[in-house]
Amino acid sequence: MIKRALPVTREADFSAWYQSVISEADLAEESGVRGCMVIRPWGYGIWERIQRLLDDRIKATGHENCYFPLFIPLSYFEKEAEHVEGFAKEMAVVTHHRLISDGKGGLTPDPSAKLEEPLVVRPTSETVIGTAFARWIQSWRDLPVLINQWANVVRWEMRTRMFLRTSEFLWQEGHTAHATAAEAREETLKMLEVYRSFAEDCLALPVVAGEKPENERFPGAVATYSIEAMMQDGKALQAGTSHFLGTNFAQAQNIRFQNAAGELELANTTSWGVSTRMIGGVIMVHGDDDGLRVPPRIAPWQVVIVPMLRDTDEDAALIDYCKALQADLAKLSALGEPVRALLDLKPAKAATKRWGWVKKGAPIILEVGGRDMAGGNVSVIRRDRLYREDGKLDSAAVAQEAFTAGAAAMLEEIQGALHVEARQRLEANIARDVTDFTGIERAFAEGVKNPGWVEVQWSKPTGPGLDKVVERLKALKLTVRNVPSDAAAADGPCVFTGDPAVERVLVGRAY
Amino acid sequence: MIKRALPVTREADFSAWYQSVISEADLAEESGVRGCMVIRPWGYGIWERIQRLLDDRIKATGHENCYFPLFIPLSYFEKEAEHVEGFAKEMAVVTHHRLISDGKGGLTPDPSAKLEEPLVVRPTSETVIGTAFARWIQSWRDLPVLINQWANVVRWEMRTRMFLRTSEFLWQEGHTAHATAAEAREETLKMLEVYRSFAEDCLALPVVAGEKPENERFPGAVATYSIEAMMQDGKALQAGTSHFLGTNFAQAQNIRFQNAAGELELANTTSWGVSTRMIGGVIMVHGDDDGLRVPPRIAPWQVVIVPMLRDTDEDAALIDYCKALQADLAKLSALGEPVRALLDLKPAKAATKRWGWVKKGAPIILEVGGRDMAGGNVSVIRRDRLYREDGKLDSAAVAQEAFTAGAAAMLEEIQGALHVEARQRLEANIARDVTDFTGIERAFAEGVKNPGWVEVQWSKPTGPGLDKVVERLKALKLTVRNVPSDAAAADGPCVFTGDPAVERVLVGRAY
Repeated sequence: MIKRALPVTREADFSAWYQSVISEADLAEESGVRGCMVIRPWGYGIWERIQRLLDDRIKATGHENCYFPLFIPLSYFEKEAEHVEGFAKEMAVVTHHRLISDGKGGLTPDPSAKLEEPLVVRPTSETVIGTAFARWIQSWRDLPVLINQWANVVRWEMRTRMFLRTSEFLWQEGHTAHATAAEAREETLKMLEVYRSFAEDCLALPVVAGEKPENERFPGAVATYSIEAMMQDGKALQAGTSHFLGTNFAQAQNIRFQNAAGELELANTTSWGVSTRMIGGVIMVHGDDDGLRVPPRIAPWQVVIVPMLRDTDEDAALIDYCKALQADLAKLSALGEPVRALLDLKPAKAATKRWGWVKKGAPIILEVGGRDMAGGNVSVIRRDRLYREDGKLDSAAVAQEAFTAGAAAMLEEIQGALHVEARQRLEANIARDVTDFTGIERAFAEGVKNPGWVEVQWSKPTGPGLDKVVERLKALKLTVRNVPSDAAAADGPCVFTGDPAVERVLVGRAY
Repeated sequence: MIKRALPVTREADFSAWYQSVISEADLAEESGVRGCMVIRPWGYGIWERIQRLLDDRIKATGHENCYFPLFIPLSYFEKEAEHVEGFAKEMAVVTHHRLISDGKGGLTPDPSAKLEEPLVVRPTSETVIGTAFARWIQSWRDLPVLINQWANVVRWEMRTRMFLRTSEFLWQEGHTAHATAAEAREETLKMLEVYRSFAEDCLALPVVAGEKPENERFPGAVATYSIEAMMQDGKALQAGTSHFLGTNFAQAQNIRFQNAAGELELANTTSWGVSTRMIGGVIMVHGDDDGLRVPPRIAPWQVVIVPMLRDTDEDAALIDYCKALQADLAKLSALGEPVRALLDLKPAKAATKRWGWVKKGAPIILEVGGRDMAGGNVSVIRRDRLYREDGKLDSAAVAQEAFTAGAAAMLEEIQGALHVEARQRLEANIARDVTDFTGIERAFAEGVKNPGWVEVQWSKPTGPGLDKVVERLKALKLTVRNVPSDAAAADGPCVFTGDPAVERVLVGRAY
């Protein structure tokens, strides 16, 4: 049996494995501040890549970036009842603007510096951005308004988990206003598709895009859509959402415009976001028992060169050889961008560095020793296929020129291979043969290997009918994830009610 | 007399002019949240350009980006007495994590959700990053640690002014730890030089780099350096700072490492930052009575194409002509990057658009009408020289091919021209002939045109001696800006004390 680089395997304890990847790959750590993490350079580097690639797509679809205040006055929230109901329980509230000595060597909020109106640290920005929209929009000529913001937000979660659910997290939130409901719906679906294709193309993350059921809507939304990814433990991760808000927020915030006929109308608005949570998804989809495997498009460094330094006179020549290699690689273009190659000269043993980069998941690791240099070679480790069939580490010496000539293609191959592997796992783990509720119970019974998700037909109940379905599923720790946009048409009875089904839904456990 | 595009001139009311540029160029606006602004797309686009260019330089000098929590527990601040003393008066404090109904239809912080330890919204992150450094650093092999963070910070300012002083602002803060004081001092000066060259090369902002006097040091620092820019009203703007923190924070946060000899030592740390304040500097250095002039390197769009549409059948052909022009420009490279060209198809009159882009300060505006198209021409407006000698708008029709062939060079010329203009103004407005305090009084007397700054010699008093100098200057609304790194050696008496001078300092009014 091969000894893997992590202290725990996915099989043994998926949750402990997840934490160990985060820690061993230097992605993030607990900060000492409740529920907040420190995102370390490798983790933040992945986020920067996600930002760059997604931002390009957000701009290419006509949106402009802005920045709105971190603080939102309480009164802004009070205007949209459902919205505040959804967030009031988890809001961080600023009440004072000065500290004074507590007389015991410590500090305390200054009672004479109490704010007249408390400020909420934004959990999301519909209310403050909507207030700006009301100022900006007078006429149909001002529409559409297409805005995005990259920001931190705070939701005071009781149980936190790094990347997946933290009190503070980083995200982008798009906010748009349109003249008609049809245009706003089109925008909602357009951004859902931007998220879907971004997840597939850049993160190598297969996802199912679809509408969330009524009970899972964003507070204040008319319709919420999501992309759902399947983790290696079979659970779902909601990796991005897009909301059609109708005129709900426009009504609350008085976003009105004069139409071409001179009449005053309410605008229709949308909002959509993805967050650092996506990194949690990348870990749980692409990680293995040796750590993370980062898809090349979002890898801060795609090729890492580790010279086998020995504190001898030969080192200088070896470093020069590696620098020339790095320079050659930097001239290449792969996956639409210049190749990112790092020469790792930190003072540590080569083997420590190798396993450090394996755990971090750099797509290609090049080890270069004296013998490699003498032969004009490099020893190549591909992170997506780390071991040979006999269980030994697959490190092959190849001619440096041949490696460089094929490096771009190899990165593209790795990106594709990770995607295919994850896509096959997703497809293999959606059970489509469940036709009654007993089948759902059987699939998710204690001791049964998690089937992933089941796709079942339902009659799309609402109100108390839906509540009942939600309750029955909750008893099994299940939720309806979404109604896949590309699912086949319904053609039988609802698994919950026996009534004729109208659509197919995915049911599973979720993060 | 030419009628300018802004409602007020610099000459008539510099402060009102500044606000009008911000508003007329759609850079930012009041948010309705006390002291916080909304940064609109053109303003945020400039910030994104600043981020991209400065981030490249920060990374090229070996720093990696991270992200640390927004919230800092009170106890972290209590450890460094000077530091907390400097910030306690302006800290936003989170005391609750939930809202409940106030029984009157509104909301109020839930008394049962009061935090045990209040959290401060970060005014700067030395304390929380230092705590992480203490975890990360054990051995000399772990050093140096070179970290940067792009983030929002909050300082509860009583008087706010857009970009220059807002309760929340955006910045980058670098934090590093080193084995020796010498290395940390070297880092402090290296980053000061990164800021200086960035301001000059990218923002076309001439600055004076130098050490701040003792009384202007960052709370807790051993030495603080700044770059100071001169606004068109003669006032100074501190546009970036770099701090050598010695072992002060390492002591407070227990950042220790084992040196090569096995002994435990305190690390030496630094911090350095620039913020959205820089945009205020760009406005007050490059703006004119028609609005902003954005240096091409930080212009979100460098060339804006305005087709003179007339709602006729000819429009389609005109748009095609402009699209081809835009595509040709996008193939060019200027100032080290692809040219950023926008085709403005918004539904507004061409003249309105022209003046909109003049006020925003797009470096080159191309107007294209039917006659231009017929002749294969474009009408070129250069924002840095808007008027001819006779006072008329300088808009010249030139062959499209000739324009495209010269566009990259024209952008580089504009970047250079703005820099030279500002550099000459700076040089012309530093008085170096003041040899006694009466000279300072005369220079800044009521009714006298502000000389800009005076460079005087001083004996570098400390303690009560310095306090006295600060008081005398304060009566004239003056401060010592910094000790220019490249100033000539002292060779006469101190203007304040009459003692032999040891260095030259810049004195001026400041934002």
